[in-house]
Amino acid sequence: MTYCVGLLLNEGIVLLSDTRTNAGLDNISVYRKTFVFEDPGERVIAILTAGSLSVTQTAIALLQDAIEDPDAEPQHSILAAPSMLKVAEIVGNTLASVRQDIEAKMSAEKVSTQASMILAGQRRGGPMRMFLIYPEGNFIEATADTPYLQIGEHKYGKPILDRVVTTQTSLLDAQKAVLLSMDSTLRSNLSVGMPLDLTVIAKDDCRVTAQRRFEPGDESFRAMSEAWSQALRDGFARIEI
Amino acid sequence: MTYCVGLLLNEGIVLLSDTRTNAGLDNISVYRKTFVFEDPGERVIAILTAGSLSVTQTAIALLQDAIEDPDAEPQHSILAAPSMLKVAEIVGNTLASVRQDIEAKMSAEKVSTQASMILAGQRRGGPMRMFLIYPEGNFIEATADTPYLQIGEHKYGKPILDRVVTTQTSLLDAQKAVLLSMDSTLRSNLSVGMPLDLTVIAKDDCRVTAQRRFEPGDESFRAMSEAWSQALRDGFARIEI
Repeated sequence: MTYCVGLLLNEGIVLLSDTRTNAGLDNISVYRKTFVFEDPGERVIAILTAGSLSVTQTAIALLQDAIEDPDAEPQHSILAAPSMLKVAEIVGNTLASVRQDIEAKMSAEKVSTQASMILAGQRRGGPMRMFLIYPEGNFIEATADTPYLQIGEHKYGKPILDRVVTTQTSLLDAQKAVLLSMDSTLRSNLSVGMPLDLTVIAKDDCRVTAQRRFEPGDESFRAMSEAWSQALRDGFARIEI
Repeated sequence: MTYCVGLLLNEGIVLLSDTRTNAGLDNISVYRKTFVFEDPGERVIAILTAGSLSVTQTAIALLQDAIEDPDAEPQHSILAAPSMLKVAEIVGNTLASVRQDIEAKMSAEKVSTQASMILAGQRRGGPMRMFLIYPEGNFIEATADTPYLQIGEHKYGKPILDRVVTTQTSLLDAQKAVLLSMDSTLRSNLSVGMPLDLTVIAKDDCRVTAQRRFEPGDESFRAMSEAWSQALRDGFARIEI
């Protein structure tokens, strides 16, 4: 399993992913699920991945290949595409086609090749945009009404987002919100695990503004998690029935 | 969908169920999902139901029939069975057999006949016990390590239970905990809905100690829900990153 979450706010974009992958409960590994493609000052694109690792790794590798190909046409390179919408189409088509290829090989095995992605970014002069890309390559976009997108194990971490996140949320509060959303998920689903990758892209920076990895045992994450537990217990104690 | 939750505490048992049933998103009804079978002072049994309404209604009706049958043998009546474990077996067997009957009729339709139950109660002289009964009739039991059981849409309401409920929790705090757990679920899943049925069975009462229905717009539930939202936002604001 996986938990990835992205917020699209007036001040910028905040993304968080875990790193746990598993093939069964007895085969657990650490893989980065946040991928950044950057032409600093001109364009920044971040992709978070969930689902079949062979599908998402191959899709990311193909996107990277198309960027590095000197003969790539703009309709194939996400760093050359004329808009974020076009980027979403390229990523969606790549994901769907990789999935179809692999599914054809796996059909006898009944192994899932489901995979989904959160795509977020901005090109100079354009708006910040964030998309959830489905396994079939179609996508939906975050809006002011629903400024966050989630993939993977999304339920445990949703209540906190529903209660505190709006498009007016500051980048600092947004980082707190995604980390606490992840904290609730980590507590309830063993197949989501540290380390965590946090990415912040401030509006119009068109580059990664800040990136941080929280390793297992990270002192600031632990302190925040405990403070939140305490705040919940204190709040609970004060509620009258 | 449905959300039902039961807590087994040193001081007693606390149960909460919603009442929403739906056949598709466009056909929504209100059905009670909490059923009490009582021989006051001697024995109290409460059953919460989730899943296919035709399965759970038929199973409950058969359990009731067996109680009312003057010739019923103890191995068929849950009010005459010699232990709560035996009650769990009767309920499990009834659920599984009804489900098999209905599934045989439905097999061409691909309609789910999944159904599960929470069974809780006490007979005079015996311990309080609480079971989660699976669609196949097998069951697990709540213990001091995991003093709560959930059926239906369990994920949204789990974090609060994990953080505040232990076997030492008072009956009053336990009622708060299940109502706040339900509140988080109601906010995130439209197929869980008011009114709510709350049941409290104090230890060794061997009868329903308190029962309350929270109708839509219930003032005390609304106030508690808002106080909890405020407590979460206040707690969130105080957390340092």
